[in-house]
Amino acid sequence: MTSNINSDGDAGLGSARSRAVQVAVVGGGVIGLSVAWRAAAAGHQVRLIDPTPGRGASWVAGGMLAPISEAWPGEEAALLLGEESLRRWPGFAAELAADGGDPALVSAGTLMVALDQGDAGQLGVLAEYLDSVHRAVERVTSRQLRALEPGLAGVRAGLLVPGDLSVDNRKLLNSLRAAAQRRGVVFVGETATEIDQGRVTTASGVLGCDVVVIAAGAHSAKLHPALSGAVRPLKGEILRLRARRLSLPPPTHTVRAVVEGRPIYLVPREGGELVLGATQYEAGFDETVTARGVRELLEGAEQIFPSVGEYELVETAAGVRSASVDTLPFIGELEPGVLAATGHHRNGLLMAPVTADAVVALLAGDKPPAEAEAARPDRLGAGDWL
Amino acid sequence: MTSNINSDGDAGLGSARSRAVQVAVVGGGVIGLSVAWRAAAAGHQVRLIDPTPGRGASWVAGGMLAPISEAWPGEEAALLLGEESLRRWPGFAAELAADGGDPALVSAGTLMVALDQGDAGQLGVLAEYLDSVHRAVERVTSRQLRALEPGLAGVRAGLLVPGDLSVDNRKLLNSLRAAAQRRGVVFVGETATEIDQGRVTTASGVLGCDVVVIAAGAHSAKLHPALSGAVRPLKGEILRLRARRLSLPPPTHTVRAVVEGRPIYLVPREGGELVLGATQYEAGFDETVTARGVRELLEGAEQIFPSVGEYELVETAAGVRSASVDTLPFIGELEPGVLAATGHHRNGLLMAPVTADAVVALLAGDKPPAEAEAARPDRLGAGDWL
Repeated sequence: MTSNINSDGDAGLGSARSRAVQVAVVGGGVIGLSVAWRAAAAGHQVRLIDPTPGRGASWVAGGMLAPISEAWPGEEAALLLGEESLRRWPGFAAELAADGGDPALVSAGTLMVALDQGDAGQLGVLAEYLDSVHRAVERVTSRQLRALEPGLAGVRAGLLVPGDLSVDNRKLLNSLRAAAQRRGVVFVGETATEIDQGRVTTASGVLGCDVVVIAAGAHSAKLHPALSGAVRPLKGEILRLRARRLSLPPPTHTVRAVVEGRPIYLVPREGGELVLGATQYEAGFDETVTARGVRELLEGAEQIFPSVGEYELVETAAGVRSASVDTLPFIGELEPGVLAATGHHRNGLLMAPVTADAVVALLAGDKPPAEAEAARPDRLGAGDWL
Repeated sequence: MTSNINSDGDAGLGSARSRAVQVAVVGGGVIGLSVAWRAAAAGHQVRLIDPTPGRGASWVAGGMLAPISEAWPGEEAALLLGEESLRRWPGFAAELAADGGDPALVSAGTLMVALDQGDAGQLGVLAEYLDSVHRAVERVTSRQLRALEPGLAGVRAGLLVPGDLSVDNRKLLNSLRAAAQRRGVVFVGETATEIDQGRVTTASGVLGCDVVVIAAGAHSAKLHPALSGAVRPLKGEILRLRARRLSLPPPTHTVRAVVEGRPIYLVPREGGELVLGATQYEAGFDETVTARGVRELLEGAEQIFPSVGEYELVETAAGVRSASVDTLPFIGELEPGVLAATGHHRNGLLMAPVTADAVVALLAGDKPPAEAEAARPDRLGAGDWL
């Protein structure tokens, strides 16, 4: 297997081929939980180390599974990896349902809307690019937009991306945690302070294992020298709102726009809930919700969907995503017995299925999905990002 | 006593003169707690009926004790009552300190600032009025304002009202609850559904007493026909923020302004906290925090004190104040054995001392403070407000 993902060609995980291995997954966000659940389902003995599994940046997320509307010329590898994961999502959700879970998968698609001529120009560039790579996208006029979403205001033009999905990130995390438990994953409620081949150190001791999987998001950088400088914290704030008795219900599609230079999305949830996101700051590991972040999100949302002003503001939250130096995640072997599954930036929920499948393949000594090749941790020469 | 406050001249509370009476206070906001505490300190046997004493609208308040900066031509009775209560505040706080409490009284005063020529004109009218009634107020230029509060931006002119005080409403409520308990007030954790002479009905039974004091804020209207239509719910939203390590500290004065037609205040608290208020809506008993309310408060605050954008948004909250049909509260006898202490609108914290003193005087058959005469419940002929 190492020949597929690691050109060093050492023994690595090859020794794990075809037998159950002891796996320690460090980090219980959507990636760590997905990896732990799928690895346990494949017959491995799995421990997941996290003081608060099911929280972290994944808890503070919109839940968009949207590789097409996130696409941009020059980022083809991310598009291909995202699309491959999107294709795996219905099967992943079905497996989760079989284990008693329900991530509330929604297939209404994404509406990207333009408020002015400049935005419309940007959408035009994206539409031409998506045409050129043969992705389904429909140009919609202002009138068509209003017919699709009567609550929109002041929009000039838009793109409908019918293939995008969304999930309720919190239902997903709760489902994954329960499914992992059901499959025998043992949860260790501690913080990993150090990892080495064959062991994970926490405040209360050392856990032995055959393979460590680093899925600690932005915290991964300090757990392995190969990730230091490659993965960094990127703060994001989101709001959760709820339609009230006499207010217009949320849009049926995910709606995205850029308001005064700031990207904003509105993701509908069951029961009249609406998630507004997301600010982005380089702010270290700060998880403070700021007045300005909240004001900008509310202002932006009211501009494109005015009824949101009447909604109840249910929650404000901030999380720290793991940004990658080249926007692609790190999935694969860092050294024998140590795998990375981190750096997913805003795409952790989207890329959870393909990441879990890649890790499970590596544990079995099999070839991971071809699209994950671009996410090999050794793609950047040592020091390239330092 | 009834001759002082009630021209009907019946026996009323006169029978209570000079002896301890059994008092049932309905409502545990700042008014109910203050009345209960002072009545118990005066030797009466007091029960306070409220499912959640120390919460309600008083919990969602800025804490300004500001009769001067709330003054307006034509509202002299409210000014006099407010000022009389303000004079009683230091003594009230000293009594509270003697009973172990601390409401964090601040005497920095209020700065009223104008953002444009129109606002400046309004401040000019207020300043002339206050001059004419011989109240201390100082006109300050934009330059002086910036010297007083370096974090202010875009202000053209202002008024400094040195006599205004402020308190930490939550410390006050906790202090009052503890002091009342210490003085022997018995807390009954239920909702009063009906009151009559000599008794209060709750879900679990009937409590007998000599005197009922209705201090249930906006809920008072349904407890006595004389208050029906006289007192109504008025929703308000406030935000609590906290300065961060590298941000400018909050202003030292209470700062008030009108931004785009909406009044806003910033009240500093100990420890870098700042309270932003307050929206006002006629919305029944709704306590939902709305997206628009939060956005407007943040937008307004950022306009006059831009650093607030960097602050942590700690809490959003809504409360229902008891608005009075003529802006004055209702303090006095409704019928023999039934007193009102409600309808304090935005001035419950300010008017708590004078209201408590008035009720305690009435319980003893004494004359209440002269300024409370204007708040007699029978000032409006029956049906005047219906």
